[in-house]
Amino acid sequence: MADIDAAIASAKSNREAHLSQLKEFLAIPSISTLSERQPDIQRAADWLANRLRDLGFDGVEIVPTQRHPVVYGEWLKSPGKPTVAVYGHYDVQPVDPIDEWTSDPFQPTVRGEDIFARGAADMKGQIISFLQAVEILVEHGGLPVNLKILWEGEEEIGSPSLPGFLDKYRERLDCDAVLVCDAPIESPDTPALDVSLRGNAFYELEVRGPKKDLHSGVFGGSVHNPLQVLCELIAGMHDEDGRVTLPGFYDKVRELPRKEREELLRAPYSDEQWKGETGVSALWGEKGYSTLERVGTRPTLEICGVTGGFTGEGAKTVIPARALAKISTRLVPNQDSGAVYEQLSEYLRRNAPETISWALRELHHAPASAVNLESSVLRAAARSLEEVWGVPPIYRREGGSVPVVGLLQSTLGSELVLMGFAMPTDGIHGPNEKLHLPNFFRGIETYIRFLGHLPEVVELGEK
Amino acid sequence: MADIDAAIASAKSNREAHLSQLKEFLAIPSISTLSERQPDIQRAADWLANRLRDLGFDGVEIVPTQRHPVVYGEWLKSPGKPTVAVYGHYDVQPVDPIDEWTSDPFQPTVRGEDIFARGAADMKGQIISFLQAVEILVEHGGLPVNLKILWEGEEEIGSPSLPGFLDKYRERLDCDAVLVCDAPIESPDTPALDVSLRGNAFYELEVRGPKKDLHSGVFGGSVHNPLQVLCELIAGMHDEDGRVTLPGFYDKVRELPRKEREELLRAPYSDEQWKGETGVSALWGEKGYSTLERVGTRPTLEICGVTGGFTGEGAKTVIPARALAKISTRLVPNQDSGAVYEQLSEYLRRNAPETISWALRELHHAPASAVNLESSVLRAAARSLEEVWGVPPIYRREGGSVPVVGLLQSTLGSELVLMGFAMPTDGIHGPNEKLHLPNFFRGIETYIRFLGHLPEVVELGEK
Repeated sequence: MADIDAAIASAKSNREAHLSQLKEFLAIPSISTLSERQPDIQRAADWLANRLRDLGFDGVEIVPTQRHPVVYGEWLKSPGKPTVAVYGHYDVQPVDPIDEWTSDPFQPTVRGEDIFARGAADMKGQIISFLQAVEILVEHGGLPVNLKILWEGEEEIGSPSLPGFLDKYRERLDCDAVLVCDAPIESPDTPALDVSLRGNAFYELEVRGPKKDLHSGVFGGSVHNPLQVLCELIAGMHDEDGRVTLPGFYDKVRELPRKEREELLRAPYSDEQWKGETGVSALWGEKGYSTLERVGTRPTLEICGVTGGFTGEGAKTVIPARALAKISTRLVPNQDSGAVYEQLSEYLRRNAPETISWALRELHHAPASAVNLESSVLRAAARSLEEVWGVPPIYRREGGSVPVVGLLQSTLGSELVLMGFAMPTDGIHGPNEKLHLPNFFRGIETYIRFLGHLPEVVELGEK
Repeated sequence: MADIDAAIASAKSNREAHLSQLKEFLAIPSISTLSERQPDIQRAADWLANRLRDLGFDGVEIVPTQRHPVVYGEWLKSPGKPTVAVYGHYDVQPVDPIDEWTSDPFQPTVRGEDIFARGAADMKGQIISFLQAVEILVEHGGLPVNLKILWEGEEEIGSPSLPGFLDKYRERLDCDAVLVCDAPIESPDTPALDVSLRGNAFYELEVRGPKKDLHSGVFGGSVHNPLQVLCELIAGMHDEDGRVTLPGFYDKVRELPRKEREELLRAPYSDEQWKGETGVSALWGEKGYSTLERVGTRPTLEICGVTGGFTGEGAKTVIPARALAKISTRLVPNQDSGAVYEQLSEYLRRNAPETISWALRELHHAPASAVNLESSVLRAAARSLEEVWGVPPIYRREGGSVPVVGLLQSTLGSELVLMGFAMPTDGIHGPNEKLHLPNFFRGIETYIRFLGHLPEVVELGEK
């Protein structure tokens, strides 16, 4: 059996090797939303499959999908022990605005105690932490559990192929627990476990007016400008209290019970710190709620992009033929993520003028999800974090979304825990994304301890 | 002296040569707003200067400015005849959206009776019409007037160097009449003269929020989204009646006298035709005014461009750090174009929330202007048009701006006429800009007749 203490000692003494693996993987620009990055996606999948084979996994496959493949692999050499399905994603977000990066996003660069690269925190760092933990355990008596690895390449584009994959591999993925590695801690001193995730739904809204761009002098004032209309429609999506005005948007949103609200507000947090992290001079949000409630327990609507007309250097006096907005909603448990399309459509039907036409396209949607607060797997994760950090974790209600969580819960029916080591301040999705290296190294130790504890707490076949 | 009838006959029988000159000049991509097109601007200036020298002009110069040169040339070989200053511009607008062009914007292409190219209507076609008229007159007895040619390369970027040039060349430009060739007719059957031009003022408005792009899940609902704020600010710039809400915007706008209003409404126009030209399903504009009044006599504010956040393929869930709008206002006589900056600033001070910062930059401004309806030069132009078209011109109030008109009027103090041959339907500034070739050829004849009539009507030294 695995010698956990020896494994931990080994983890502490091989940090150069861990860092080297991390840099190698981060250098692959596996941006899933850009078609031209397809070869890099394939390289990242190959890299992971080879790594799993080298570690002794069986049945390693790069399973093709309509777009980007899933990397699958099994370790079933620990009979009588629990089986853990491990979810992660090897794809990353685009890098624009590229000129705001201090170093090349795909030339991982250590500055101080941080490593800067696209995907460092979201979430290649966790994949490498987990792989290093596995390697060390294999070298120190073998894995204390069975593993089923499931790493997809489409998380940043809404995991379109995952439902089909899970459907096909449902029996093969049978397990006692699910570990989702795409998750944060609170700060270098404060470990955390996510117990709630917002869902999301992403749309493109296009407004069309004239059949072509018009001269703003010759025609200005006589036709409705699609950019102006788009701005008016967007402006109407929030009321003066910062509430979203889509009809029915809040109908199924439950208010947090007092006990859970108090637990949430125990998290180390200050408005000043939040302002410092974001760089804004004043916070904003739905009236009647604190910042942690706003991001953790309330649904929101965000304008992620707008484009239309002339936006280059200098002046061009046009009335554009069309204008486009990218709109994201973040949803909380009980909200029907599929229903937002209809709510947004109804809003547009009620508010769009007859002078233009509009089209609404859903790019993806995923429900919110919650972790069972009484689960033994959650307790094993909490204990592992406390052993490594020296303090118990706080329970976070996460503003971001990991759409696959709800899907894994409903497909596999096992207790699920989210445990990863990025921080809210690591700048995921933006320029200069980083990972704090002390968290990366502690992450390896935590995964070692977690896999070690699982056999103690998970009763086989309990589900 | 020039034999006008022989010149007209010559103009009619040399159309291949006229077209060939037009194509050659249109092929030069002299886009003034793009720095990388500087060599093409220079090529266009060289082309014109060489053409003037070949025709026998004296004192031909390519006068450098801070950015793009002015082409100047004189014909002073007609003693005792009036002197006409001729204004035009050889620069053109950018070509985006390039994928909406049917043929390359700088490979002039004839389809049916139209020639398609950037700058065909705005306004290289008129420059070539005028040059061909001059060539024919020179060949048929000599020019009946003296000419001072002034063709700039910065009209599409707001003519920043022209005031300085006019100041320096003021005495040399002394003249009895000014012809501005940058103007339209109404339709192939309806000649027209512009008697009023809107001014304009162009701004960039930038809204800044977080110090970098933020993850829309982690931070969504807790900071004010700069794109949302920008949209709200833009939405508030018009009220429900389509009126601009900037404080003081209408203070100096005069209502058109009934007689001028009736004259304006005599123009051949129908809402159906306007809808057909623009491709919109319904017109829009300031309540209480017809379309011709809206574009010809009322000031407007247009959103020419907006950009912010992620606008590429697919989804990226960010709260952008900044958002940018390009805003143009079109102004009518008596409005102070310089005052709009302060009106827009005041609007922003009153309406921008404290959660963001904003910056407003003026790119250029120019006042509206009006032509003296009693001028003998205007009558000479009207007579020339009627002789060529067979019907008298209508008097148009133009929605577009030729900023230099007011400047020429105030600097040179001579009667000014605007006469060109583009049509409102020629798609200037947009994709697939064209010039109707019958108008181009008639333009040559009209300029011949106009120069022939001027000695009959202009009393030397009358100003």
